[in-house]
Amino acid sequence: MATLASSGTETLERSGKLDQGRTPEQATSSDYRFPASQKVYTSGNLYPDVQVPHREITLSPTRDQMTGVLEDNAPLRVYDTSGPYTDPAAVIDIRQGLVSLRAPWIAGRAQTSYVEVEPSYRPVAGHSDPTLPLPPKRKAHRGTGLVTQMQQAKAGIITPEMEYISIRENQGRDRSQSVGQHPGQSFGASIPEVITPEFVRSEIARGRAIIPVNINHPECEPMVIGRNFLVKINANIGNSAVSSSIEEEVHKMTWATLWGADTVMDLSTGKNIHETREWILRNSPVPIGTVPIYQALEKVGGKAEELTWEIYRDTLIEQAEQGVDYFTVHAGVLLRYVPMTAKRMTGIVSRGGSIMAKWCLSHHEESFLYTHFHEICEIMQAYDVSFSLGDGLRPGSIYDANDEAQFAELKTQGELTEIAWEHGVQVMNEGPGHVPMHMIKENMEKQLEWCHEAPFYTLGPLTTDIAPGYDHITSAIGAAMIGWYGCAMLCYVTPKEHLGLPNQKDVKDGVIAYKIAAHAADLAKGHPGAQAWDDALSKARFEFRWGDQFNLSLDPQTALAFHDETLPQEGAKVAHFCSMCGPHFCSMKISQDVRNYAASLNVVKSDDVAAGLAEKAKEFREQGGEIYK
Amino acid sequence: MATLASSGTETLERSGKLDQGRTPEQATSSDYRFPASQKVYTSGNLYPDVQVPHREITLSPTRDQMTGVLEDNAPLRVYDTSGPYTDPAAVIDIRQGLVSLRAPWIAGRAQTSYVEVEPSYRPVAGHSDPTLPLPPKRKAHRGTGLVTQMQQAKAGIITPEMEYISIRENQGRDRSQSVGQHPGQSFGASIPEVITPEFVRSEIARGRAIIPVNINHPECEPMVIGRNFLVKINANIGNSAVSSSIEEEVHKMTWATLWGADTVMDLSTGKNIHETREWILRNSPVPIGTVPIYQALEKVGGKAEELTWEIYRDTLIEQAEQGVDYFTVHAGVLLRYVPMTAKRMTGIVSRGGSIMAKWCLSHHEESFLYTHFHEICEIMQAYDVSFSLGDGLRPGSIYDANDEAQFAELKTQGELTEIAWEHGVQVMNEGPGHVPMHMIKENMEKQLEWCHEAPFYTLGPLTTDIAPGYDHITSAIGAAMIGWYGCAMLCYVTPKEHLGLPNQKDVKDGVIAYKIAAHAADLAKGHPGAQAWDDALSKARFEFRWGDQFNLSLDPQTALAFHDETLPQEGAKVAHFCSMCGPHFCSMKISQDVRNYAASLNVVKSDDVAAGLAEKAKEFREQGGEIYK
Repeated sequence: MATLASSGTETLERSGKLDQGRTPEQATSSDYRFPASQKVYTSGNLYPDVQVPHREITLSPTRDQMTGVLEDNAPLRVYDTSGPYTDPAAVIDIRQGLVSLRAPWIAGRAQTSYVEVEPSYRPVAGHSDPTLPLPPKRKAHRGTGLVTQMQQAKAGIITPEMEYISIRENQGRDRSQSVGQHPGQSFGASIPEVITPEFVRSEIARGRAIIPVNINHPECEPMVIGRNFLVKINANIGNSAVSSSIEEEVHKMTWATLWGADTVMDLSTGKNIHETREWILRNSPVPIGTVPIYQALEKVGGKAEELTWEIYRDTLIEQAEQGVDYFTVHAGVLLRYVPMTAKRMTGIVSRGGSIMAKWCLSHHEESFLYTHFHEICEIMQAYDVSFSLGDGLRPGSIYDANDEAQFAELKTQGELTEIAWEHGVQVMNEGPGHVPMHMIKENMEKQLEWCHEAPFYTLGPLTTDIAPGYDHITSAIGAAMIGWYGCAMLCYVTPKEHLGLPNQKDVKDGVIAYKIAAHAADLAKGHPGAQAWDDALSKARFEFRWGDQFNLSLDPQTALAFHDETLPQEGAKVAHFCSMCGPHFCSMKISQDVRNYAASLNVVKSDDVAAGLAEKAKEFREQGGEIYK
Repeated sequence: MATLASSGTETLERSGKLDQGRTPEQATSSDYRFPASQKVYTSGNLYPDVQVPHREITLSPTRDQMTGVLEDNAPLRVYDTSGPYTDPAAVIDIRQGLVSLRAPWIAGRAQTSYVEVEPSYRPVAGHSDPTLPLPPKRKAHRGTGLVTQMQQAKAGIITPEMEYISIRENQGRDRSQSVGQHPGQSFGASIPEVITPEFVRSEIARGRAIIPVNINHPECEPMVIGRNFLVKINANIGNSAVSSSIEEEVHKMTWATLWGADTVMDLSTGKNIHETREWILRNSPVPIGTVPIYQALEKVGGKAEELTWEIYRDTLIEQAEQGVDYFTVHAGVLLRYVPMTAKRMTGIVSRGGSIMAKWCLSHHEESFLYTHFHEICEIMQAYDVSFSLGDGLRPGSIYDANDEAQFAELKTQGELTEIAWEHGVQVMNEGPGHVPMHMIKENMEKQLEWCHEAPFYTLGPLTTDIAPGYDHITSAIGAAMIGWYGCAMLCYVTPKEHLGLPNQKDVKDGVIAYKIAAHAADLAKGHPGAQAWDDALSKARFEFRWGDQFNLSLDPQTALAFHDETLPQEGAKVAHFCSMCGPHFCSMKISQDVRNYAASLNVVKSDDVAAGLAEKAKEFREQGGEIYK
């Protein structure tokens, strides 16, 4: 990796400090350090080599306004998607790739056999730049027996991945931090108070959740996607024929996971697709998804009608050998559904969907993705690649939302889900798109019913079409809502959607908007412990612990910078006021005064303030009763 | 106005071109011109001097892919809050103020008498800078008889303001542009297909909507706030003791209305409150709201306990004489509610609420806002100032959402609403705040019931606390939802919320996020004609009319800039692809190909494409039936 060029306006130098002893060539997103944060690991019980990372944010103590006594605030642990990059103890060399933490778990499975295979990929002139460096070569594996997490779950086996996830999902939080959390409204989700390894297994077994982990991606830190777990988000990256370079894409991946992307889809088109993906996979701590039809199309010079099953099949195998964790497969785009799109406002907007529609029409044959679906399942089973059954006919405009074409395909997605499950292959279903708010719930309800509670994975949805440049916001609204209704993973949309390729700033903006949506959904579902983060931040805010407020933000850097724009002085960060109201008008300060005043009347313990005030108010009512006549 | 200094990063020079012949001293937001847009006016029928502005966006024609024939696209009219600043024919001199378009309507009322009064305001040393310039002095008026829009509505009178609003709400759109709009889900709202002057009158008469227009703000272009009309947004501006200047505030007002703010609240604290407000009012085409207790508190040196009814009353009169259109009055914060806040996570976060709570406790008396509420109504009636009944006990954190204190105050807001109506005074009710998604609807339902369908006006609500720096997004989610449920106006939140004072960029970001929320709500409610904008933009997108897509965006400037970041060449703006997929992978292009291919089979009219394809597909089914076995 020669350089870490960025097309964005936010550079590494601006976002954090480069570690001493690192050359710029070695710089990664690990050069940004979350303030007051440390990486902590929790060990497994079933599998002691399971080491689950959390980010632990240290908080400063609260000073009692009356007595001056300091009271500690427990540190807050948050879910950490950033991988070893944020671990100061980790040795990072992106030219070597990450440590294969899952290798012993994969190798140690009792009922699985592996064949070591020479990777099938051969560079094709014109498609790859032969001078491009590749990570150190390694063998790929193909499994037989109980290869997939689903197969093992059905056999009653709790894998190390499942224990890892159970610890991860509990967020390492003391549940008592969330006393007073609002009961949520979960629309039929069944989220237990504590996530156990057995619960993870049972959810995987019944197909209600997936663990996308290819046996050839041992670097991946296991995570789960399902409506009874934390809502996840995906970030798309990818070069295209027009712009972007491999170095940028690898850096975008680590950048996206730094800010919270749970999975990353590599949607590269154009040249060097294989090489880009290889670099991303070997350095990715999160599952990587792809849309294999993009590369297949590249192999036939972009002519959809020249696609064949064989070319597609070989592409699947090539990518499965590399370690791709989930494939988007648009097998639900059937020939007979294509006419349903002719009267749409925006036709077929999914690239994969339009490629297959064109193929179907050109040949006047049913999609080879559909006719060869069993074979696709067999390939994916052998590597534990999960399905992301694509929604090739998703609506591309408000006008086209929830139409016949969309729901026809969704029903077929449901049929295909059952077939994949018969093969022991894990499945999630992709969903829209552009949908006005009042039509979102119908999508979730139909998906749950028709696709048998397989996880739903939606793009937004965007709730209006009128704001290109701000579609991270138009879609975060829809994403938060569908996450609340039961969607398991939200595919981010960046501000550049419909307009251009996201740069580094756009990726971060998209990820943050979707972390907001996902967390808002967790709160609304009543996910146990979710509110602890909000409570910790709000308590810090009320107590004017400014540093804690910044450090607890999804984006400490921006929170601090915004504060300092108005009040740059160091003293303002310990001040009991802020720039919004100034020192004399601060409502938080007055509210503290109210508490103190009340406390000084006839009580000393803050717990009795309410009682003391109530007493006074009672006197008042007895004297005056109804003032207003 | 000596300078137009801006604390923001977005300067006038960046956002648009200065008109020739204008000095920088005279520059205003009118220097930004929306591309391909012109100001058009629709005349009233009842009142020919009613001239309602719209922004009309000209669109380029569609080229038929098969025949090459050009087909015109009708221009789209959009609601225009920007006032005369965007009218090239208007003479703008902010040192003189805007033209008083309503003056003849106010003067011409048959059943209203006016007393001309010398403004009561006298500058107080230390509170105002005597060297500050003020707009030309004018007399204030106080009315007797049927002064308020509500009084007139109840008497069966359709005022010019009501006709103005009826035209404005129809958006000057041909309803046929919205054929195919999704029926919405309006939760009991009663939005007619076409808004008539009589409908506006009836809604005002029954208190279900308000027209905030002080008789001393004749410059104001009338607008309506109510759940059976378009959802509105408010932008807060205001200097504070810490930062900001008068010039900035006036410019922020025109900047906010340029991007779509329907009303502006001047929340200035610190010095020169009166002078700031005078400049804003004389130059504002939108209703201006204030929180009079802020200025009253300034008059007693910031000591809440020294506030008196007399000081507050005089402040109301002073501001009513200036022309403030609505007052936030926290009359629902009762002494007996204060103890309910002692155990909250974030106490009382409303400035007005905390001031009154402190006063109540200090005096151990009921709030003078409550005990003098009838007198407040009498003052507001004489100028037609509308109430925005404050929610002084709104939750400041997720933890505190929907608690006893909040709902106790809401019930009192309902009682006060009825009292105000007895006085013929228009009322809306303020609402939260911080509320997780699943608890938002309860707020709307209780408000509708307890406050008798008076318009609701909420701050967000923010759906999580964990993202300071991005609270325009955390809150746009909640705002869109409560707008859908029936909230009439959404008070914006900027990215600086909780951190600092918004600069020019923050104001724009907040306004755009809230225009998105409001429009998403209109779509979900099924507001007639709302979808025409989305449809026009999506059609342009599908047809690769790039210029139209930018011009139809809420923010054409940003949409164009984002596109050009990746594809700066002029040619890319007529290209049938974009940077996301590049020329070979464009799904929109393939989708067009699909249509064309289908059309070429056996049909010529695009309307028959679906039928033609269906025929082919039928053949296919007959031949193959179920492919998948």
